[in-house]
Amino acid sequence: VRTGYPEVIYCAGKTPEQIVGILRNMLARGTRNILGTRLSQEAFEKIAPELEGCPLQYDPLSRVLVVKREAVEMPETHILVATAGTSDMPVAEEAAITAETFGNKVERIYDVGVAGIHRLLSYTDRIMSANVVIAVAGMEGALPSVLGGLVDKPVIAVPTSVGYGANFGGLSALLTMINSCASGISVVNIDNGFGAGYLASMINRMPMQR
Amino acid sequence: VRTGYPEVIYCAGKTPEQIVGILRNMLARGTRNILGTRLSQEAFEKIAPELEGCPLQYDPLSRVLVVKREAVEMPETHILVATAGTSDMPVAEEAAITAETFGNKVERIYDVGVAGIHRLLSYTDRIMSANVVIAVAGMEGALPSVLGGLVDKPVIAVPTSVGYGANFGGLSALLTMINSCASGISVVNIDNGFGAGYLASMINRMPMQR
Amino acid sequence: VRTGYPEVIYCAGKTPEQIVGILRNMLARGTRNILGTRLSQEAFEKIAPELEGCPLQYDPLSRVLVVKREAVEMPETHILVATAGTSDMPVAEEAAITAETFGNKVERIYDVGVAGIHRLLSYTDRIMSANVVIAVAGMEGALPSVLGGLVDKPVIAVPTSVGYGANFGGLSALLTMINSCASGISVVNIDNGFGAGYLASMINRMPMQR
Amino acid sequence: VRTGYPEVIYCAGKTPEQIVGILRNMLARGTRNILGTRLSQEAFEKIAPELEGCPLQYDPLSRVLVVKREAVEMPETHILVATAGTSDMPVAEEAAITAETFGNKVERIYDVGVAGIHRLLSYTDRIMSANVVIAVAGMEGALPSVLGGLVDKPVIAVPTSVGYGANFGGLSALLTMINSCASGISVVNIDNGFGAGYLASMINRMPMQR
Amino acid sequence: VRTGYPEVIYCAGKTPEQIVGILRNMLARGTRNILGTRLSQEAFEKIAPELEGCPLQYDPLSRVLVVKREAVEMPETHILVATAGTSDMPVAEEAAITAETFGNKVERIYDVGVAGIHRLLSYTDRIMSANVVIAVAGMEGALPSVLGGLVDKPVIAVPTSVGYGANFGGLSALLTMINSCASGISVVNIDNGFGAGYLASMINRMPMQR
Amino acid sequence: VRTGYPEVIYCAGKTPEQIVGILRNMLARGTRNILGTRLSQEAFEKIAPELEGCPLQYDPLSRVLVVKREAVEMPETHILVATAGTSDMPVAEEAAITAETFGNKVERIYDVGVAGIHRLLSYTDRIMSANVVIAVAGMEGALPSVLGGLVDKPVIAVPTSVGYGANFGGLSALLTMINSCASGISVVNIDNGFGAGYLASMINRMPMQR
Amino acid sequence: VRTGYPEVIYCAGKTPEQIVGILRNMLARGTRNILGTRLSQEAFEKIAPELEGCPLQYDPLSRVLVVKREAVEMPETHILVATAGTSDMPVAEEAAITAETFGNKVERIYDVGVAGIHRLLSYTDRIMSANVVIAVAGMEGALPSVLGGLVDKPVIAVPTSVGYGANFGGLSALLTMINSCASGISVVNIDNGFGAGYLASMINRMPMQR
Amino acid sequence: VRTGYPEVIYCAGKTPEQIVGILRNMLARGTRNILGTRLSQEAFEKIAPELEGCPLQYDPLSRVLVVKREAVEMPETHILVATAGTSDMPVAEEAAITAETFGNKVERIYDVGVAGIHRLLSYTDRIMSANVVIAVAGMEGALPSVLGGLVDKPVIAVPTSVGYGANFGGLSALLTMINSCASGISVVNIDNGFGAGYLASMINRMPMQR
Ligand SMILES: Nc1ncnc2c1ncn2[C@@H]1O[C@H](COP(=O)(O)O)[C@@H](O)[C@H]1O
Ligand SMILES: Nc1ncnc2c1ncn2[C@@H]1O[C@H](COP(=O)(O)O)[C@@H](O)[C@H]1O
Ligand SMILES: Nc1ncnc2c1ncn2[C@@H]1O[C@H](COP(=O)(O)O)[C@@H](O)[C@H]1O
Ligand SMILES: Nc1ncnc2c1ncn2[C@@H]1O[C@H](COP(=O)(O)O)[C@@H](O)[C@H]1O
Ligand SMILES: [Mg+2]
Ligand SMILES: [Mg+2]
Ligand SMILES: [Mg+2]
Ligand SMILES: [Mg+2]
Ligand SMILES: [Mg+2]
Ligand SMILES: [Mg+2]
Ligand SMILES: [Mg+2]
Ligand SMILES: [Mg+2]
Repeated sequence: VRTGYPEVIYCAGKTPEQIVGILRNMLARGTRNILGTRLSQEAFEKIAPELEGCPLQYDPLSRVLVVKREAVEMPETHILVATAGTSDMPVAEEAAITAETFGNKVERIYDVGVAGIHRLLSYTDRIMSANVVIAVAGMEGALPSVLGGLVDKPVIAVPTSVGYGANFGGLSALLTMINSCASGISVVNIDNGFGAGYLASMINRMPMQR
Repeated sequence: VRTGYPEVIYCAGKTPEQIVGILRNMLARGTRNILGTRLSQEAFEKIAPELEGCPLQYDPLSRVLVVKREAVEMPETHILVATAGTSDMPVAEEAAITAETFGNKVERIYDVGVAGIHRLLSYTDRIMSANVVIAVAGMEGALPSVLGGLVDKPVIAVPTSVGYGANFGGLSALLTMINSCASGISVVNIDNGFGAGYLASMINRMPMQR
Repeated sequence: VRTGYPEVIYCAGKTPEQIVGILRNMLARGTRNILGTRLSQEAFEKIAPELEGCPLQYDPLSRVLVVKREAVEMPETHILVATAGTSDMPVAEEAAITAETFGNKVERIYDVGVAGIHRLLSYTDRIMSANVVIAVAGMEGALPSVLGGLVDKPVIAVPTSVGYGANFGGLSALLTMINSCASGISVVNIDNGFGAGYLASMINRMPMQR
Repeated sequence: VRTGYPEVIYCAGKTPEQIVGILRNMLARGTRNILGTRLSQEAFEKIAPELEGCPLQYDPLSRVLVVKREAVEMPETHILVATAGTSDMPVAEEAAITAETFGNKVERIYDVGVAGIHRLLSYTDRIMSANVVIAVAGMEGALPSVLGGLVDKPVIAVPTSVGYGANFGGLSALLTMINSCASGISVVNIDNGFGAGYLASMINRMPMQR
Repeated sequence: VRTGYPEVIYCAGKTPEQIVGILRNMLARGTRNILGTRLSQEAFEKIAPELEGCPLQYDPLSRVLVVKREAVEMPETHILVATAGTSDMPVAEEAAITAETFGNKVERIYDVGVAGIHRLLSYTDRIMSANVVIAVAGMEGALPSVLGGLVDKPVIAVPTSVGYGANFGGLSALLTMINSCASGISVVNIDNGFGAGYLASMINRMPMQR
Repeated sequence: VRTGYPEVIYCAGKTPEQIVGILRNMLARGTRNILGTRLSQEAFEKIAPELEGCPLQYDPLSRVLVVKREAVEMPETHILVATAGTSDMPVAEEAAITAETFGNKVERIYDVGVAGIHRLLSYTDRIMSANVVIAVAGMEGALPSVLGGLVDKPVIAVPTSVGYGANFGGLSALLTMINSCASGISVVNIDNGFGAGYLASMINRMPMQR
Repeated sequence: VRTGYPEVIYCAGKTPEQIVGILRNMLARGTRNILGTRLSQEAFEKIAPELEGCPLQYDPLSRVLVVKREAVEMPETHILVATAGTSDMPVAEEAAITAETFGNKVERIYDVGVAGIHRLLSYTDRIMSANVVIAVAGMEGALPSVLGGLVDKPVIAVPTSVGYGANFGGLSALLTMINSCASGISVVNIDNGFGAGYLASMINRMPMQR
Repeated sequence: VRTGYPEVIYCAGKTPEQIVGILRNMLARGTRNILGTRLSQEAFEKIAPELEGCPLQYDPLSRVLVVKREAVEMPETHILVATAGTSDMPVAEEAAITAETFGNKVERIYDVGVAGIHRLLSYTDRIMSANVVIAVAGMEGALPSVLGGLVDKPVIAVPTSVGYGANFGGLSALLTMINSCASGISVVNIDNGFGAGYLASMINRMPMQR
């Protein structure tokens, strides 16, 4: 049952009171590290005063809460999180913070969409040195295809709901990614940064877990 | 009424007899050049013997028929037709032959999908020298986005029905292209090589037509 | 790299502070002309006082911001922007102001939907004299087909989200335009006035840029 | 219980034997006029020899069978059937023959799609003189909008499955027609020529039936 | 040119000021009767004081405004408006008031959905006496099929967005109606009471207009 | 686990050889009764000679195979299978034969679509006497709503792929049924006669199984 | 006409005044038990003071109102309501309270999604002892398939709109359930707890009603 | 650039002649191992005689061709390929043979759909011992969710087009998988066994490649 891992709370649809209850319960059971996703700023502000003494880090961009009371052993290899645009950053940070909290080094390269291919390629060395790649993109969602062609490492594609018109809330980017010609690519749900970060961590930490 | 231009026959859903009738009628009216699209090999073989003496060129890959009896004056600038895969070639050739028949120089760069970005970029000089770009792609349909970012010329994106599974007969590629972040891109119907070739010709020949 | 062109800011999803930062940065780098799209009235009102001395023009209908400090050389030919209804005007103005800011003469003919074909045709002379046409329509989206049949110039079709019921946020108009029988038509994303204006400018200014 | 009307057989999915059985049964009951729709040429050829002595008229284009043994009284006013393209003719003829068999004068104007608006308008007098209009179109399906704007009579819009790519088997044309801005338009199922012809007849014959 | 008819204003997306302007303009031109659709209560309350002396009738349920200063001659026959549920009444009233304003007697039978078939059939006599039927239904949208089978008069089917879950904003009801087996049925856009009322009036008033 | 029940083979996608193998295996294990669904006529003709001595009943309409070597005890109550059209009969018979083979009396009322409501209601007594109702319909799929309103017993709705145009392979009927206002209705997959027959049997045989 | 049963009010889209009116009317007619669904907290608070003396129970989670003035005779057997997650509880409670109000014992097992199969299976005995199962799930909607395989009793599957991204408001879960391989499963509308509870009651109470 | 790996040919849409050409070219360049996917039996039979002397293994179920002339070093850990039904085997074998050809031990567990959860769980030990899991399922596609909950290893979900009715060619299974609540799951295209096998190999061979 995943010892050493943080416990996770998916806060969407939970009241601040419920979240405080779950947190207290986890802390009482001795859980050292906790990750809370989809927590609104308002909810965090109601929660914080209730948990004095507990080290809460909240990131308003990704709406992620981290309780980190114990260092987690980390592999040497690292995970790369790349985004097509700046608007994809909330999802990317959900992925990055998830991976970090589960015990991984994470490198970020943001705003490197394929419409500016030379900018993307200027990061080739850093891209090639990653052990797992998380590629986050909305609108046409083409970034994972280009990255999947560059690296011979797993690429986890995260479609985002960023865009307008015929993006259909991220469906367009999802279809692009599922149809990718590049090999080594697989896809998670629209805006599911957590799922991508968790899977990337699982792959990156494989040598430590066997 | 577009003088100088070839006349066009859209052969899908027409019988060989109907097509022969239309061709004879055009020839009788003095039409010098004719373009027939979506003509099956079988239909062509029934048509050819009926029109002896008339110079028919048939391309089985794109299913295009050309009657060329008069040279068309051409602009110096040229059109580039690029495809992501080899399976996109029938649509690309429909575009290329259309553009040629309407009086344009056409350069072809095929099988340069974004999953092999270095192969695509090895053609940068040839890409940059084009006056109009036609980008043909199925599956994830990401090629126009990369080309649109490279060039500062109009890019006509043609989604194809190439692919399987969640490509939904080309809808996936169409949505990718419509949502492209790169500027200067516009989109025609799935597999509509003719439409792309015609529009590219219209843009490329603008200085000659004013 | 597009010298002479304005720089562009896509303001959707950016805070007023971020936009002020980007604007100051551009002005500091010596950028003469700037176009900002999708800027809400509220955001503009927060931005204006921060940039005193800089000539800001804001159009609340299209939510476009223009900084114009230098005239741009213009071709003789002009772009026509036509709409089916009055509700399509915000998108049309985004296109028109974009084209003007990039250095083009623009003519507007609004509320000429195909359900009133004689009204549309009463503008035939003005329609025929354009070098590029931008056709903006929601609901059934039929305007580009009629215009594409009238003119022998490129028609850029812009579907809008105007309508209700089975318009599906503009998808219905998008499909109409993509399936158009008229030749010389291509399509951009739903409500993407900027994309249409940019592409129209690119085509109209071709003789000046070669 | 619709006296005077023909009886109708929808032949799709019925064997020739079943159809012969139904026809014999109707004839035995004294039915004077019969309309059979969606009858394939092969099926007709098996049926014909079984029903010698009965006046069978079969139209292979629309796949309609008519048994007409009695004239039907007709109103003075007539129904117009118009199509956008020649490929829409099978559906249009299903509508036209249905209306004729139910006792109506029918005028046909085919291949008058909106991309050639002057050709369509050259028929204005004939269009204006109709009492009910059936507008048949595939691809972008814009014809009913233009006709609905011209006439002040009911326009029955029939989307067809004609087209390719993003026409989605007629869905694109159906959505166009349902979203039409012109008033006086209503829509039947894709390729449902019979339904349009029946409804048009019902409206046109109203003064005779009250 | 529709003499005798009211003029129509589609108020959605227009400001109260714009609507006052259009109304004043129509009144100044001598228009006797006016119909305004999709006018919110708030907008009406801003408009009313500006048009003192002009007889404004506003119906908050259907959000329809009527200016009636002149009686319109009416045919003997009448139009029936039926709804499946009480939630469909706003759309039904838009249809009914439209038909009345254009000069028709209208009978209403509401809340007679097919899940209570005996209640529906208890109105058989009133249903059979109508000259045109408008059938308004959301959710499964089955009412027009049953009515279409009962009467031998045109049935105009209006899908509504009433429902939840897999009703997809009225798409489910629209598809039901378009696929109806009953003959004499045609369909207008989701929630388009105006369109149905206008078309019903056109058919019902045919003998008066010839 | 399910003693007394027949064993079931879903034959779609299995070769005749595989089916013979499964049948022999079941017979060898002592299975008395067997139901095979989706078995083509061709496959049956290859299977029959291989299983001489075993009593095979094959119904080509529903493509169902039954091996019945033992009577199954039956409850007094019965299941009603109703269809909207005759084209829905293959699916209805799959349901009916399934229910019979699992030990139930089944009554059939076919071709009672809601467009002929009086014909449907002429069977009211027989409808009211059923213990479970299976309502099978394609196109607009409205039959279950009417039946669900009539009876106070469970109605299992089976959408069929019968129809054309906007029926989208049965999706239209599925949506109609899922959105039904009548209570006591639930839905199985398009064309899933087996699933409906099995569930109806489970409900009807409840008193025997407790 | 369902004697003994509660009367039901679907409160969505009704004003508090209308609901009070309907309630008073029912009470005046002597109705003993009443079930109101989809009633918001705000509406309840306006209704309660108007109905003093009448025993109103309101559940804010499921938004269900119950008036229970008379015990209903209950069968020995019971209904199980299971959910995949805690966010599915509002829909599950609508189902459970409906079934209880119509006279059934209900057991609840919540938060037993298939991603934690051992937790689900730890309830096997309680699952196996139910007479009818209601399985409520959003996101991937897989719970009914597992339950349908475990039990040989009817499983009513309720898709919920819980989830994000490609859940499309519950469509994803609906499709999963409709395509289930397990037999004995049928499906109701997204979030339709009432429909599931009503149908489960109908099946569970069958021995009492014959 | 992927040394040691086999080269891959995607044979769909290529003629036997083209495939022979590509194979000869690869062999001439010294490629030791080759994988060909989507090769029909007919095409294989035309190819085989042309390549005598070369060790061709063809699997008609998965339509995969393997040329294996050199052993590939393998990691100790292995990949598990599981399917929900027997009809999913072609896709599963494409995945399994791909993984084997790229140098991995593969274990297969087929026909363990979630509707028979005890059968699936009887393989728990073998499931838990895998290093990477490929879960292949059509229809409701729930298998990956259950497996993802059981194992703490990456699960690659492959939707298949197996099923009928509302499976929409695999879209239903794809949506189920993308919406999975279990963590560690990612998804590839419908029927994309190759993509899953390739990605699984990449992950499983990570320790060998660093
Ligand atoms: N952003 C997210 N999207 C989807 N699933 C999540 C997300 N964050 C957490 N989860 C999952 O939710 C589970 C916790 O759910 P809960 O018990 O409702 O708090 C975790 O184990 C994760 O698998
Ligand atoms: N309305 C618009 N829709 C889509 N793209 C736009 C729009 N306005 C500007 N853009 C694009 O956005 C880019 C600037 O994006 P950013 O760097 O995020 O401000 C420009 O170069 C344009 O290509
Ligand atoms: N509810 C409605 N839905 C659709 N079209 C309408 C509606 N009400 C009015 N219209 C149409 O809108 C036209 C007036 O539009 P406008 O000129 O924008 O006020 C009328 O002639 C009608 O054809
Ligand atoms: N027509 C059908 N549609 C859906 N499922 C069926 C059908 N016929 C049989 N089944 C199911 O298929 C199972 C047998 O599948 P199999 O083991 O592949 O033969 C049975 O237990 C039924 O649950
Ligand atoms: Mg790769
Ligand atoms: Mg560009
Ligand atoms: Mg044109
Ligand atoms: Mg009109
Ligand atoms: Mg009728
Ligand atoms: Mg009922
Ligand atoms: Mg079961
Ligand atoms: Mg897991």
